[in-house]
Amino acid sequence: MAKARNAISPGRNEDYPEWYQQVVKASGLAERSPVRGCMVIKPWGFALWENIQRELDSMFKATGVKNAYFPLFIPLSFLEKEAEHVEGFAKECAVVTHHRLEKGPAGGLVPGGPLTEPLVVRPTSETIIGESFSRWVRSYRDLPLLINQWCNVVRWEMRTRIFLRTSEFLWQEGHTAHATAEEAIERTGLMLSIYARLAEEYLAMPVVKGRKTEAERFPGAVDTQCIEAMMQDRKALQAGTSHFLGQNFARASDIRFQTAAETEQYAWTTSWGASTRLIGGLIMTHGDDDGLIIPPRVAPSHVVLMPIVRKEADRQAVMEYTDRIAAELGKQVYHGRPVRVEIDRRQLGGARNWEWIKKGVPLRVEIGPRDLADRSVYLGRRDMPPRSRTSLAWKQFVETVAAILDEIQANLFRRALDFRNRHTRRIDEQEEFYAYFTPRNPEKPEIHGGFALSHWCGDADCESKLKEDLTVSIRCIPFEGGREDGKCICCGKPSKQRVVFAKAY
Amino acid sequence: MAKARNAISPGRNEDYPEWYQQVVKASGLAERSPVRGCMVIKPWGFALWENIQRELDSMFKATGVKNAYFPLFIPLSFLEKEAEHVEGFAKECAVVTHHRLEKGPAGGLVPGGPLTEPLVVRPTSETIIGESFSRWVRSYRDLPLLINQWCNVVRWEMRTRIFLRTSEFLWQEGHTAHATAEEAIERTGLMLSIYARLAEEYLAMPVVKGRKTEAERFPGAVDTQCIEAMMQDRKALQAGTSHFLGQNFARASDIRFQTAAETEQYAWTTSWGASTRLIGGLIMTHGDDDGLIIPPRVAPSHVVLMPIVRKEADRQAVMEYTDRIAAELGKQVYHGRPVRVEIDRRQLGGARNWEWIKKGVPLRVEIGPRDLADRSVYLGRRDMPPRSRTSLAWKQFVETVAAILDEIQANLFRRALDFRNRHTRRIDEQEEFYAYFTPRNPEKPEIHGGFALSHWCGDADCESKLKEDLTVSIRCIPFEGGREDGKCICCGKPSKQRVVFAKAY
Repeated sequence: MAKARNAISPGRNEDYPEWYQQVVKASGLAERSPVRGCMVIKPWGFALWENIQRELDSMFKATGVKNAYFPLFIPLSFLEKEAEHVEGFAKECAVVTHHRLEKGPAGGLVPGGPLTEPLVVRPTSETIIGESFSRWVRSYRDLPLLINQWCNVVRWEMRTRIFLRTSEFLWQEGHTAHATAEEAIERTGLMLSIYARLAEEYLAMPVVKGRKTEAERFPGAVDTQCIEAMMQDRKALQAGTSHFLGQNFARASDIRFQTAAETEQYAWTTSWGASTRLIGGLIMTHGDDDGLIIPPRVAPSHVVLMPIVRKEADRQAVMEYTDRIAAELGKQVYHGRPVRVEIDRRQLGGARNWEWIKKGVPLRVEIGPRDLADRSVYLGRRDMPPRSRTSLAWKQFVETVAAILDEIQANLFRRALDFRNRHTRRIDEQEEFYAYFTPRNPEKPEIHGGFALSHWCGDADCESKLKEDLTVSIRCIPFEGGREDGKCICCGKPSKQRVVFAKAY
Repeated sequence: MAKARNAISPGRNEDYPEWYQQVVKASGLAERSPVRGCMVIKPWGFALWENIQRELDSMFKATGVKNAYFPLFIPLSFLEKEAEHVEGFAKECAVVTHHRLEKGPAGGLVPGGPLTEPLVVRPTSETIIGESFSRWVRSYRDLPLLINQWCNVVRWEMRTRIFLRTSEFLWQEGHTAHATAEEAIERTGLMLSIYARLAEEYLAMPVVKGRKTEAERFPGAVDTQCIEAMMQDRKALQAGTSHFLGQNFARASDIRFQTAAETEQYAWTTSWGASTRLIGGLIMTHGDDDGLIIPPRVAPSHVVLMPIVRKEADRQAVMEYTDRIAAELGKQVYHGRPVRVEIDRRQLGGARNWEWIKKGVPLRVEIGPRDLADRSVYLGRRDMPPRSRTSLAWKQFVETVAAILDEIQANLFRRALDFRNRHTRRIDEQEEFYAYFTPRNPEKPEIHGGFALSHWCGDADCESKLKEDLTVSIRCIPFEGGREDGKCICCGKPSKQRVVFAKAY
């Protein structure tokens, strides 16, 4: 039998980065904009982001977090307050230097009205939010202060890739202040666990929770915790971070409070963020050679209904039948919300079906005159091959739609977990480690490697040597497993801990 | 009887602008930031904005609009594509000229990495969205294209006032493209009617719908429609605008399509926006000398429960009783959503009650040991004087809470409408017109004027003379009423139309 043609070319095994760009394009999630490094998030991509936002937002609020909004611009002097912080971001700051346009000598418009102090477009908001916190916090009674904002941030990137690394991206950044280090540390972990829950339960993307090494920490943080996911090219993607900032930023922003014992102390702060990068992770976790696959819990539409009109005489009856099914589906509840149904009435033949395959909608339903006659529907599931479709009675479909969506969600997670397990290896020998992370064909590097669970002595020199030799980094020191005696994979000195090594986005 | 003291000083009649600032401060809605002209929206203010967003967003989506996201930065050359447009915004553009910070000669950080083309932080996005539309629209089958984005925009302002005029603000901007002028004009009106519905049904803020004169139009628009509300100082506030852009922006951005007849044509576009300015309108429509009053439909909390613990021995019983009432209230449905309940357990005496009065929560409920004994609650309504409170059985309160909220919502609208009607006058004599808009005491101008419904001949010179003489502008040419023969209030020439004159924000 001839190999079935796929909708996306090249396939994942042919050219993974190019496959990714083609899926983004074919799914209509987003596109590059003419503004260097910035993206346009198209309606299908934005609806996906809205679903992610809604779930995260309600998890945040359930822990007492409140949303607020702080200025886009940060005066340069604010950013400079924390030395490591400003150093970490200085190379990627968009800087506003003028506040109007005026006629230039050549007649065209040029920047006018120079600012006395340049303003940086926020790359992250610790310093500007810290300024507010310093006024909002007076006494231990004002603590904890639990704030989040949904916003755009700018980090000027030289090499950009849509959703994964763009000069402007959307995210949420949470910022909290506490009376004790213990409480701030607990909050850091709590927020990380929310990111892990979003990733695993909603995006069907298994993650490893752990902490970053000193070299990989957020600039200015005492501890950076993260979730790391494995993409289908076996590279790691950092999908969310939560930072314990100690008193570093409180000192920089002067966030002091009076304790119950009437002494004065700096607050302990945290910050935590997740961004539109999660969409990149979703694409690379689930997508196949026919395009995007969206887990039902975050899918903009759960079901697309495609009425097929072969003769004009059938039109009305087929459309009415479709409308009726849509109405009944919309009354069903999936994961606490109404099933989201879309009707695509365009008559485009097979092209319409393929369009929805590429967009990754979980369920495709074709409805033609024969289905109408049989009171049935012709159902395609996105977690199954495009040609494996089944006919079932429409009432049965309506009654089981939530269960089918649950099954797809579970399937996607299981598949991704299997994949990660297959490509995670405990490696104790340096030779094996180097071979694991080295493509066999350097001319056209095939997909290789994965997560290596190997010992590390804790020395930054070993970490940087492996990075230099293999472009492999320590993704995290995992919270679970890994604590045992062994020998550093790099230098052979004693180690107490296996860590997760991988190539990464 | 001595005049009861009020929570806000000065009162509205003493110094309206200062009263406004004090209400913003006392309610905890927002505050000025150290970044010139930018504001910090605090949790209470942001929760209000989220409610406004949710209602508007669902009204937009019900008309087929989809959300998307476009870049923050606009290349200068894009903005220049529409001549009137760039001229209208040139004086208030924040300009990004550099993309990193580097060590300056004095050792501190200075802007580095000059951009070859300056980027403007979006003051509005017609030109950058137009660029995408030019690629998305190919055929009449791609039309209409109905897109909205929720985002921040920057318009550098010299004189700022929180929510009303800030350098950065949050808004939504809708952008649509159509195959015919008729359809685009219909969309312009449809979106205006959604703004009017939001204002009247949710913000309880009566508005006049109409169109702007040529002098007041959006730069580049063919027609600007608006809703205008009257504040308590009798000035007008423009609360939302919807623009028919003709083919101006389609030509500038090259948005062409193939018609059904296979000819090529420029699309017809619209844009429409409403912003955090609406919150300023809400404050000035309903606030009183005790602070903010929030209409229930957009209130962050509908009810605040304040348990009163006089003796430690009562604590547990009072708290349990409070929790039980909160749980029962949370099961009630108001306007299609669960009643939003907050418990304030702090024991601050009368200060706590006053704090919630100033924050404008619709219902305040005090619960002490005596209420517990009586199975009652002590209820204060924010649309009634602070001291007019009533005791009622808790079950009765729970059963009627939605009806009480409805009554408050209706009361607030009726009051605001009465106020507007009392301060709207048909004026046909120039002398009366001048007197109406002239304060009696020029040293300390009292609140005066209102809406004048007067004839205007259509001449821009008359319009600008009245603006110069009285700082009065034509707020709109109203859609309803006003069409009749008369004489221009300025020049006496024949007029076909009364228009709405007022001083304005």
